[in-house]
Amino acid sequence: MFEAIDPNYIERVKSLFARQPMMQTIGATLTRIEPGFVEITQPYRPELTQQNGYMHAGVVGTIADNAGGCAAATLAPPDTDILSVEYKLNLLAPAAGELFRAQAQVLRAGRTLTVCRVDVKAVRGESEKLCAAMQLTLIRIPIT
Amino acid sequence: MFEAIDPNYIERVKSLFARQPMMQTIGATLTRIEPGFVEITQPYRPELTQQNGYMHAGVVGTIADNAGGCAAATLAPPDTDILSVEYKLNLLAPAAGELFRAQAQVLRAGRTLTVCRVDVKAVRGESEKLCAAMQLTLIRIPIT
Amino acid sequence: MFEAIDPNYIERVKSLFARQPMMQTIGATLTRIEPGFVEITQPYRPELTQQNGYMHAGVVGTIADNAGGCAAATLAPPDTDILSVEYKLNLLAPAAGELFRAQAQVLRAGRTLTVCRVDVKAVRGESEKLCAAMQLTLIRIPIT
Amino acid sequence: MFEAIDPNYIERVKSLFARQPMMQTIGATLTRIEPGFVEITQPYRPELTQQNGYMHAGVVGTIADNAGGCAAATLAPPDTDILSVEYKLNLLAPAAGELFRAQAQVLRAGRTLTVCRVDVKAVRGESEKLCAAMQLTLIRIPIT
Repeated sequence: MFEAIDPNYIERVKSLFARQPMMQTIGATLTRIEPGFVEITQPYRPELTQQNGYMHAGVVGTIADNAGGCAAATLAPPDTDILSVEYKLNLLAPAAGELFRAQAQVLRAGRTLTVCRVDVKAVRGESEKLCAAMQLTLIRIPIT
Repeated sequence: MFEAIDPNYIERVKSLFARQPMMQTIGATLTRIEPGFVEITQPYRPELTQQNGYMHAGVVGTIADNAGGCAAATLAPPDTDILSVEYKLNLLAPAAGELFRAQAQVLRAGRTLTVCRVDVKAVRGESEKLCAAMQLTLIRIPIT
Repeated sequence: MFEAIDPNYIERVKSLFARQPMMQTIGATLTRIEPGFVEITQPYRPELTQQNGYMHAGVVGTIADNAGGCAAATLAPPDTDILSVEYKLNLLAPAAGELFRAQAQVLRAGRTLTVCRVDVKAVRGESEKLCAAMQLTLIRIPIT
Repeated sequence: MFEAIDPNYIERVKSLFARQPMMQTIGATLTRIEPGFVEITQPYRPELTQQNGYMHAGVVGTIADNAGGCAAATLAPPDTDILSVEYKLNLLAPAAGELFRAQAQVLRAGRTLTVCRVDVKAVRGESEKLCAAMQLTLIRIPIT
């Protein structure tokens, strides 16, 4: 559906991810990188929970937003930075699971703006449940 | 503009906040609690940053969402839990500062749903700059 | 993926649509009704355009919101009304075409809240282009 | 709070509004234009209602989006067009009233993107009630 214009897009996305200290702090990892699609996986951690023991919505939002940013970056030219303009997140079910997968798909990649949809799934053993849905807008900024 | 129906709303909000391990992990604190209004303050921390050294959008979203949840809780009856249904966050400027204040104001508190607007301000010395704006929807759940 | 609990869901959705004068005013019609899915089709009309001759974003939002409401209604019990709580709409490309299809898919149907995603496609001859994407939240209200 | 860089911003906004056939179709008028602020007023019309006789959410969204676009235009340089990128609308109360006022305030006007908040108020005689709240993002496009 989409083609990467930068042949080094995988390295670029890995580098974008690795340069974010927040990702190490919460323990998130990049688990899939394709043109227009990225998956981030986050393990359950008790220090990242809310009052009922579920993953905090803030962490769900963080990995979803990041997956979207990385998905947008797969389609960007070299020498551009990607910043989130805005996002909207629906919390569909408690974030209860052993790990969480944020899967971002680009809907449209324009010269300036990129729009993604992201699904966050809570995984327990073999079962997977959609726990959040995001729609987000990103902007390309030339690196000067 | 709004009146709290639970005279113990301050204690209830403090308890709601204290029971969220994520808030201790990032170092956020409750700094104002009024009927329909809550402020959360978050210090800059290098381990919570993104690739350019600014506070990560995920942290900005986390404190804004939480301030909204606490603001909704000030107006809720006892024996109810407050959960975020969804939120939309615009990132208006880099989250650059020594500390960050998320100020949530309830727009409407219905029997089931509450809607808030939240401003996040980046503070450096005496200066304060709006760096993010959120609009969010919350639901009251009876505690059984 | 979803099952309708009301065997008369098709009639109920048709009636919900027919009782909205706004739908006749803009010329929209219901073109597909399935459990958890509804499509609304809208012809291009010059009196519903914006300054560049494209369909007005307001009309795009109207048919998307309505398709979502009807999709939610397919899964609701009888004797409930469906109201939009909120929605977020991304305008991805100019709404240029002969007709427009808003296709709404329920993501989650809870007892109180339903969340949908909606695609709006601009159609010209054989070609179809995604021109808008919505994510919306609806609430079931018992009819008394 | 904001200053217009184009001294002819009032004429420019009036022209932007007048060139949208949709605005005449629904009967909306521009009632206030200030740097960073615009109000649009819409009378109640039975042909623009939903199933319960209230103004259709689509009309509420249309005037709110337009007020935001015009507010953004007050701060734009000449020779730029303003397009909505995305918006999020919360419907807070039934749109019941004789007329409706959409009041848009710019939060931030950047070189490329502008973000606004919009309140929609339902007016009945002397009383005014907030019935919807929007947060929206717009982009400036050079007119070539």
